Order: sequence, then C-alpha cells, then structure tokens
Amino acid sequence: MIKIFKGNVIFTKTMQSFEEHKNSYIVTKNGVVEGIFEKCPEEYADAEIIDFGDSLIIPGFNDLHVHAPQWLNMGIGYSEELLPWLEKYTFPLESSFEDEDFARKYYRLFVDDMVKCGTTRACIFATRHLRATEILMELLEESGIGAFVGKVNMDRNSSDALQEDTQTSIDETLALVKQDKEKREKAALNGELPLVNYIITPRFVPSTTAELMTALGKIAAEYDVPIQSHLDENLDEVAWVKELHPECRSFTAVYDDFGLILPGKTIMAHCIHNTDEELKTLKEKDVFIAHCPQSNFNLSSGVMPLRKYLDMGMHVGIGSDVSGGHTLNMKEHIVEAIHASKCYHSVHRESAPLSTSEAFYLATKGSGSFFGKVGSFEEGYDFDALIIDDTNLLHEKQLDTLQERLEKFIFTGTVDNITNRYVKAKKVTCK
Amino acid sequence: MIKIFKGNVIFTKTMQSFEEHKNSYIVTKNGVVEGIFEKCPEEYADAEIIDFGDSLIIPGFNDLHVHAPQWLNMGIGYSEELLPWLEKYTFPLESSFEDEDFARKYYRLFVDDMVKCGTTRACIFATRHLRATEILMELLEESGIGAFVGKVNMDRNSSDALQEDTQTSIDETLALVKQDKEKREKAALNGELPLVNYIITPRFVPSTTAELMTALGKIAAEYDVPIQSHLDENLDEVAWVKELHPECRSFTAVYDDFGLILPGKTIMAHCIHNTDEELKTLKEKDVFIAHCPQSNFNLSSGVMPLRKYLDMGMHVGIGSDVSGGHTLNMKEHIVEAIHASKCYHSVHRESAPLSTSEAFYLATKGSGSFFGKVGSFEEGYDFDALIIDDTNLLHEKQLDTLQERLEKFIFTGTVDNITNRYVKAKKVTCK
Repeated sequence: MIKIFKGNVIFTKTMQSFEEHKNSYIVTKNGVVEGIFEKCPEEYADAEIIDFGDSLIIPGFNDLHVHAPQWLNMGIGYSEELLPWLEKYTFPLESSFEDEDFARKYYRLFVDDMVKCGTTRACIFATRHLRATEILMELLEESGIGAFVGKVNMDRNSSDALQEDTQTSIDETLALVKQDKEKREKAALNGELPLVNYIITPRFVPSTTAELMTALGKIAAEYDVPIQSHLDENLDEVAWVKELHPECRSFTAVYDDFGLILPGKTIMAHCIHNTDEELKTLKEKDVFIAHCPQSNFNLSSGVMPLRKYLDMGMHVGIGSDVSGGHTLNMKEHIVEAIHASKCYHSVHRESAPLSTSEAFYLATKGSGSFFGKVGSFEEGYDFDALIIDDTNLLHEKQLDTLQERLEKFIFTGTVDNITNRYVKAKKVTCK
Repeated sequence: MIKIFKGNVIFTKTMQSFEEHKNSYIVTKNGVVEGIFEKCPEEYADAEIIDFGDSLIIPGFNDLHVHAPQWLNMGIGYSEELLPWLEKYTFPLESSFEDEDFARKYYRLFVDDMVKCGTTRACIFATRHLRATEILMELLEESGIGAFVGKVNMDRNSSDALQEDTQTSIDETLALVKQDKEKREKAALNGELPLVNYIITPRFVPSTTAELMTALGKIAAEYDVPIQSHLDENLDEVAWVKELHPECRSFTAVYDDFGLILPGKTIMAHCIHNTDEELKTLKEKDVFIAHCPQSNFNLSSGVMPLRKYLDMGMHVGIGSDVSGGHTLNMKEHIVEAIHASKCYHSVHRESAPLSTSEAFYLATKGSGSFFGKVGSFEEGYDFDALIIDDTNLLHEKQLDTLQERLEKFIFTGTVDNITNRYVKAKKVTCK
C-alpha cells in the first residue's frame, strides 16, 4: 500500500548535517520509505497524499533506555546518588507493580505520555513482575508504537519485596521469551514483524547472581534475544561490582564473561566510567551505548565522554532514563546531550561540543538503529515520523532554513507542536 | 488594606531548607506580608480571604539577568560561542528595535511570556534605542510585574547599525535617569514606589569606551542609580578585555576603576572565569552575581563555581539570560543551576552539588534581594506569589511533603500549573 506524505522534510542521514527537503513528497510503500521527491512522481498519481502544508516532517524520537514503572517518580529524589536513590525511591515504587490494577493504571499513563511526547520506539525496563510486564507489552501494542520490553531480573541485593528466587527469575524469563517467539512466528505467517518484542533485562551486576547471569546469557544465545542493562554509571556502583566480582577484569568483563553481551544486540546504559579496555570490548562486540545525560546530571553520575565514543565509531543513542531523567520528552534529552558535551568541553577543550545535527541523529537514527532501519527517511527505512506545526514559534522571517525551524522547536517548542505521529506509516493516536 | 491568602505555603527563608506551612493563612497589609498563621487571627475576621484550597503558594520567580529584545532569538545560534554569536545573531536582531512598531510588537510578546512563566521581577537589558526602552518600560508598567530596565550603552566594537556616538549615549542615558527620578519623586508624594525603574546598562567592557564608562559611573553615583553588566563570561572575551585595558589589573578592575561598581547596587552576569582577586572586589563591593547556567551551557561558556561563591557569602541570583538561555521560565533555570553544580561536582568532588532548596532560594530570595524585601514570605516582605495547582502531577499518595510537591512541579510541571500571579498582593493578569 502506497501512502505519500507532503511537507517540509528534515532528518539526519549522517551525524554531520541535516538533510532538508522543502515542500517535498515522501513516498512510502507498506510503511517503508521509497524515496523523497520535489514533485510527486507520475506513477503514484493515484495514491493517497497526506498534505501537511508548511509543517515539518521529522523522524520519530527513539528512547534507547527508560524504566516504565518509574514514571511516577519523575522529578523526585535527586538529592541522592544512584545506590541510595534505588533503595529509597525506586525499589519501593517498583514493588507496587505486583498489583495488576496498579500496573495497568500507571503503565497506561506512561504509554500515553510517551506517545504524546513523540517517542515512536523505546527500549523499556519493566519491573521484576511477569504479569505487569505482559500488561505493559499489551498496552504498547495497543498504542501502535514500537518497543523492546524486558521483565527485570534481580535475585540479589534487592529490597525484600523485589528480590526474586533465582530459579523463578529464570523460569519467568524463559516463559516470556518463548511467548515472544511464538508471537513473532505467528506474525511471520502473515509476513509481519511485531512492533513490541522481548529483551532480556538483568537490572545490573549487583542485582544478579552469577547463576542467574549465566542462565540469562544461555537463554539469550539460544533464542537470539537482545539484552539490555546498566554499565559504569556511578563510581560507588563500579567499586561495588569490583568487590562482588574480583575474578573479572572489569564491570564490562562481568557481563561478557557471563555471556550477556550479544554482538550488535546489546544495549548498555550510561557508560560513564569505563576504562579503555572496557571500551575495546564494547566496540568489538558492537554494543549500543544509551547516553542518558539528564539522568547523569540529576543523579550526579558524571559526564559521559561522548565525543570519544563517536570518534571510535561506537553505536550511541539517547535514553530518557526516566526516572533518573525527569521527562519522557526526547527533545529535552537532545538539549541535555548538547549541554553535557559543552560541559565536558569546558574541562577537556580538545573534545568538541555536540552539534544540533549530531544530537538529533543520536535521538533518531542513533537509537533507532537498534530497531532495524529506523530513525531516518532514507530509502528502505520505516516511515516513523512526527508532524510539527511550529506556526506559534515563527515570527518575522528570521528563520530561513528548516534546520533553524527544527532547532527552534527543539529548544523552545512543546509537545503541543506535535500534531501527528506515525509508526511504519500508520497513524498513532495521542490521547 | 488587608488581604489574606490561604493555601499550602512553601518558601526558602534560608538556602538550607524549605519552610512549609500546610493549609495556612498569609496575612498581607498594603502588599506586604504581616505573618503566616495556621488559623486566621481574630483581628482579621472581616478581611477578604482568597482561598486556594490544596494549591501551593510560592514566591514569584525573579530573573536577575535577561535581554528583552533577544526573546525572538531563543533557541537559535548555539553552535557559536559568545563573541561570534553576538556578531552573527544578536546584533542584527537588536538593530531592528530602532523601529518603534517592531519594538512594541515584540516587547509585548516578551512581557506576556514573562508574566505567563511566573516571573514577578526582572533585571532587563533593552537595546541601545531610547524610544524602544521607554516602550518596554511602559509595557512592563501595564503588566503589573516589577523590573529594572536599562537602555544598553555601546559606543565601540559594535555593528554599524548599533554603535552609538559617545555623547549621544551619555545624553540619552541621562535623560532616562532623570525621567526615572521624576517618576519616583511623583510616586513618593502618594507614599508609593514605582515597580519599574531604570538601571544603568553598559553592555560590557569591549562595547564601551573609557570616556563612556567614566560618564556612566558619574551619573550612577550622582543619581544613585543601580548598574548591570556582564563579567568574565567567556575566555575569548576575558582575553579581549585584557588587550583593551592593559592598564587595569583585571576585567572586574576595569568596571571598578571607571566607577561602575556601586556597593550593593550592581549586578554582574556570569562571573565564570574570575580570579580570586576579582572575587575579593566583588565581595567587598557587595556585587550581585547573576548566575545564568542555561546560557553558559548553550554558549559553551564554562561552569560557574557557584559553591565557592555561596561559601564566600556572595549575593547570587539566577538569570535566564535569554537568548543565551532559551526560555524565560525560571523553573527550568533552577533545574539548570542544579545540573551545572552537579557537573562541577563531578570534576571538583569537594564542591557539593546544589540542593533544591538552595536553587529555589537563588531564583526567589537570591535574585529578589536586589529589589528590596522580595522573594520570601517573611514578615515585611512584598507578597509576590504564584499559585500552583499541581493536581495533574499528583498520583497516589506518594508525595508526602510540600517540598516533594514543589520539586515535582519544578522538574515536571509546566506554566499551565500556575493559576495566579501576584505582585505586592495585587493580581497580575496573564494573557
């Protein structure tokens, strides 16, 4: 099925610059971009054209790291650093997701908020509760946006209410992985790919025993399921991991030794305090780094050396890390990534600050690449898009280029400027 | 005239902690706070009570440094640092304010936006144009918020369109200062103090000749008018000042030598790269430092060593510095101040991050002190207040204290949570 979208198209094929196509036509076929044209090609003369006039058409935002249950805690508890913050704020809240009604109520608000903010794909940590995780996946499927979702695994050093029995954690994960496999096989019969998929989600090394990590690594390998976790976020955390695993060369090595780094299919959030040896592993294993600058500010975690990672050619995307971050709005996280890089630059003058195109790329194609051909309008990419009506932001004729209009939206716009959202060319409804 | 405001009162008398008064009555007389009571005192039984139910009552925000004409440029040009940014973006825009109609149109939008954001007092740079500056002062008077406003002085190193003749700059400033004096004398006959006043505003050292600075210093001293300018914002700027004034010991010394630091009546914005000798002068002369963290991030200016200044007992307030900053919303600048301090902490571990109460204090009483008894609800303070309806931010019973509710508003609320604004107990209307 052909659908054509008309408007002012802007996106980042590469990090270095924006691609701008004023008043152009994006032709899509079965949800995938065929091409961008100044005039509508004759062969598509009969196809439906959705004309957005002077609005901007930009790729949807992709959130590479977020904790759905923590949505309720946004803005709370930032006087603490990571470990006491988990104990004092996060664990008590997450334990409430034992209750299915509670889970349904707040996961619905989380999903609605995510859609409203213009996130079209996300990699999501649920809680350790199987049923609540299923509910979250159902709600995401209903919403129309894409996601990887994982039940959190945590069988040590957790609160009484959250700590799992090792075997139960393994069994429940396996059940969810098998369920996901069946869903994918069923969809494949119709030539489809589900938008919501499972991802194995050990909370972080201090929360998972060697036995559990080993088992999860085996499940991931056997069923070819991606993995997400946290790495080198906070100095106290790094020291703790060293104490827990003196047999491993580093924090990264713990994951690697237990089979939890699947090449090209693993996300590690934060990556602030990595050694060069760790970076070598992350690069070799093609790990996606979820940069979470707002969370890193809020929890005093430090500033990630982003420029170094970009120079190394690492995969980097941006995560809201709610509720380490205090908003799901990826626009804000683009600004925070620029700010963090400028902070870093003020101390390390040789490390260039992030440009707007680089930051935009990270939150669209950078994060999106984890989902496949997502986050760009190049041929063959899924048409995940936001329509931006920025009329209220424009005054006089001072904004000449689409880039300036996009920058104005990113720095000064609100979610109300987003008038339409699409995933694979299908409209996503905002409640 | 007695007016009583009822609600959940929270403010910062000191930086160290919030004062919370649940369901309490703030009694005001002629716009000034008489006291806060759990029950309405009998002597006020006949007075008007404005009951805000479960809403929060907080002090209005005070913006210690902002450029009104640059409102149009918010979000634009942050790939540049200060000096090229001025040339490329700021000077061309400011030259448009020669046109009175343009000035009226955009100063109106600026003032409306400031009111909407909950700013109740501000120290404002206009442009070098006398008539546009008067228009801005008129619009501020109509709005009901308080402000110091200055026509910018700039007679060297400016764009052709903006550069002034030295004598014209002096004459126009003197005219505005005299006008302001007359206004104050006239108001004093009715026992009143005008809310909008003049402040002498040399742009910064590179823009003002020795002759102009000397003349402005004399006017300030003779008419007892406050002064605002920029100091030690950017390393290239600091080097330039050193080149321009080899006869002075430092950037601060230039202002001081030319009589532009009036004890207790001077604001210097930024103060990032000061030497200890400069800080000694700023402390001795009781200078107010306008901390502009968002602008400093955007323009890669560096991170101000705020904790050091607080430890020294300096006067510090927060400025939006639009359009170095990209929003007038002081709530966002409170968050940025916390983030900047956490960044600084990640490099200088001995420098403690800013707590929420400290950051809130800076944007209320810290900035407010420049205006008199402003920014707190202690006895004798002007009742400048915002009413916050945070119903949409509250879920379950997870927020026990007014502090947590205020933090939630600051990090996750929007201007739509502000339902009412007061200056000196008089309602300010939001358009």
